Amino acid sequence: MSAPAKPTILVQLDTDPQPSVFDGVVAVDSGVEHLFRHGGVTPENVRDLVYGALFTRGAGDLSRTALFIGGSRVPAAEAVLEAVKKAFFGPFRVSVLFDANGSNTTAAAAVLAALEAGGGSLRGTRVVTLAATGPVGQRIGRLLGRLGASVAVGSRDLGRARSLAEQLHATTDAEYVPFEMGRPEALAEQLESAAIVINSGPAGVQVLPASLWRSCKALKALIDLNAVPPLGIEGVEATDKAKDRSGVLAWGALGVGGTKMKIHKKAIRQLFTSNDHVLDAEEVLELGRSLD
Amino acid sequence: MSAPAKPTILVQLDTDPQPSVFDGVVAVDSGVEHLFRHGGVTPENVRDLVYGALFTRGAGDLSRTALFIGGSRVPAAEAVLEAVKKAFFGPFRVSVLFDANGSNTTAAAAVLAALEAGGGSLRGTRVVTLAATGPVGQRIGRLLGRLGASVAVGSRDLGRARSLAEQLHATTDAEYVPFEMGRPEALAEQLESAAIVINSGPAGVQVLPASLWRSCKALKALIDLNAVPPLGIEGVEATDKAKDRSGVLAWGALGVGGTKMKIHKKAIRQLFTSNDHVLDAEEVLELGRSLD
Amino acid sequence: MSAPAKPTILVQLDTDPQPSVFDGVVAVDSGVEHLFRHGGVTPENVRDLVYGALFTRGAGDLSRTALFIGGSRVPAAEAVLEAVKKAFFGPFRVSVLFDANGSNTTAAAAVLAALEAGGGSLRGTRVVTLAATGPVGQRIGRLLGRLGASVAVGSRDLGRARSLAEQLHATTDAEYVPFEMGRPEALAEQLESAAIVINSGPAGVQVLPASLWRSCKALKALIDLNAVPPLGIEGVEATDKAKDRSGVLAWGALGVGGTKMKIHKKAIRQLFTSNDHVLDAEEVLELGRSLD
Repeated sequence: MSAPAKPTILVQLDTDPQPSVFDGVVAVDSGVEHLFRHGGVTPENVRDLVYGALFTRGAGDLSRTALFIGGSRVPAAEAVLEAVKKAFFGPFRVSVLFDANGSNTTAAAAVLAALEAGGGSLRGTRVVTLAATGPVGQRIGRLLGRLGASVAVGSRDLGRARSLAEQLHATTDAEYVPFEMGRPEALAEQLESAAIVINSGPAGVQVLPASLWRSCKALKALIDLNAVPPLGIEGVEATDKAKDRSGVLAWGALGVGGTKMKIHKKAIRQLFTSNDHVLDAEEVLELGRSLD
Repeated sequence: MSAPAKPTILVQLDTDPQPSVFDGVVAVDSGVEHLFRHGGVTPENVRDLVYGALFTRGAGDLSRTALFIGGSRVPAAEAVLEAVKKAFFGPFRVSVLFDANGSNTTAAAAVLAALEAGGGSLRGTRVVTLAATGPVGQRIGRLLGRLGASVAVGSRDLGRARSLAEQLHATTDAEYVPFEMGRPEALAEQLESAAIVINSGPAGVQVLPASLWRSCKALKALIDLNAVPPLGIEGVEATDKAKDRSGVLAWGALGVGGTKMKIHKKAIRQLFTSNDHVLDAEEVLELGRSLD
Repeated sequence: MSAPAKPTILVQLDTDPQPSVFDGVVAVDSGVEHLFRHGGVTPENVRDLVYGALFTRGAGDLSRTALFIGGSRVPAAEAVLEAVKKAFFGPFRVSVLFDANGSNTTAAAAVLAALEAGGGSLRGTRVVTLAATGPVGQRIGRLLGRLGASVAVGSRDLGRARSLAEQLHATTDAEYVPFEMGRPEALAEQLESAAIVINSGPAGVQVLPASLWRSCKALKALIDLNAVPPLGIEGVEATDKAKDRSGVLAWGALGVGGTKMKIHKKAIRQLFTSNDHVLDAEEVLELGRSLD
């Protein structure tokens, strides 16, 4: 009990050829003492890297080594996460944070903004999610459903919206309504009863003109995750953070980003509190809810 | 003399595309302050990396920079070691530890177990080495010969056993008896007078059934380096560490592994005590013999 | 204001497949706390790495993150520097040191030796630069011109000498005289009135026999950057540092190298004093001029 704790080591497993500098800096700023940075990680080559984390420190020190899974292509990183979990067995495991392309921390920060707008609860709240089929949008949908919201999931492609709605329902047991985002009547219909609108669409694409949301009677909050002009929701600025915009609370990408960064750092620190955390979307949101 | 010592830097030269996490963690746990991790190292690209270690710190500080050569393919790493030694000249050198695939530290730990069984000496002791032609087996054979043991080297392929025996004899001047491991009479003949049996065969392959060793009158110790069931020597458990098994002292892969890890860390620390260590099998064993 | 400063992070952007160990060791010895080492950096993949440096720390902490651009192929690294500068915008920038193949620190150290020989000024001094068209030679020519020297630029290829002279004149407004280095009369003509000769030619190639410079009446200093025998200027030793050689002050590659190393370390430390340094040849020379 009196031996000094071993230094913390975070093994950064990145699916991109160059491991992310962003994730590296956040790790350092979270107090990680040694960072092992790996690019080009695949489900095929990750097992030996994981074994190196499992078989080097005794059971009492396994919580001082942890894994971070990142990369710009979220599905590739999800495959690495599966391979990492398969490499664990019995007590031989270390904690893992999944945050490819910032997907989990961004989704958690967006949902925290929604919760703030909802007075701490989203139970029964009508939320419209725009461009919902991307990695961040899917996670937002999943988290909202688990919180009891009623979620409309919009995509340019109705088929993709439908299959996402089915998949999210199967995962969370909540109700999801798919709709075709590019069809004005479909969008207007969903917006009519919406309390909250969240856009996780691509950079530089406007998905909601101001004229459409200004007439919505039930609307309480707008959350736009697009940081690159033209922004996704007209009338919301990137720096907005619970800013009043025509009677609606607005969050822009940078307004959400500050919270995202705090969650990211807290999640890294959390990794070293035990050797069996798997911090995916739900766990990351939970950490965000207890931010100071 | 009063300037604070420069931070220790270990340059990890790994022949695999991803540098080993295992070797990285052990380096950190040995107190290395800065670890430079390189994968994909070859005899062709290593010279400039070595020059970077040689030409940056003054003579008095060269002992604060060291090299670790690793990788899963031992012959590839041996070629890198040769290239590294060729890059040194005159006083321009730094210390090097070779431990590709854990070959030196594992061989040393196995030979330490054999020494323990032999009461501190192996002079004149008959040792049978099974699956002796792999990188770990070759090193074990070399170390045993230097300690004065009489070594039988077994392989599935008699030709490979013969050429190894000749090569080891040329290196150590000790006597080696080659035999064909897969031929029951040959194996039985060698076992009859054996005091110690060491298996360094592949994971998950049984090479010695219990029925064969239980009848050996002279047998004092069994050492099995295979950690993956089915284990290599039936009746020995992976966690055995000088465990009595039917009157014979037994060591399994994990029992040897604890010692291996201590040797590895001691070797890393040893690197920084001067700028001219080349820690290969013999030097690593010597460090193991003086473990506390 | 009272929060402890964030750890310093240097992002090493190297165009070679293996990032330079030399530059890494110097970074550690300059006090850098965390070093992120990237090999294989190109103008195409550098933007996201730079963004990771820009978008992770608040404005007050941006000076704690910096970039180092290196690699053995100087033009490839120059293209990376351009891409890095393009990724900056408004206050979103971090400090950068460019020293591919040691080009800036070597050129600065050579020019400092010339300044020492010139008593602190090179205004109006006739300097002959040999093998002037390489990356180090070009930088030396540029720095000499800015200091008011009259510079003869020699190359094996007169066309390349001419185009360099034009380019340097356009950059610095100083006068440059191109000449064909391999033509004895041309070389002798330039040497006749030369006060200082600097060779930045390739390793192992003699460009100036002793017989040619010993007869030069006006000659005060010889500076040879070739460290590999045969050295570039016959009669100058690699370790010479303001050494008297037949009445002329001589500097060899190792004599210049000690100053180069001091400049390199000072430049790394300088990076962390603000977030907007771009340390290229001129800035690096300026740092060298104020060395203790």
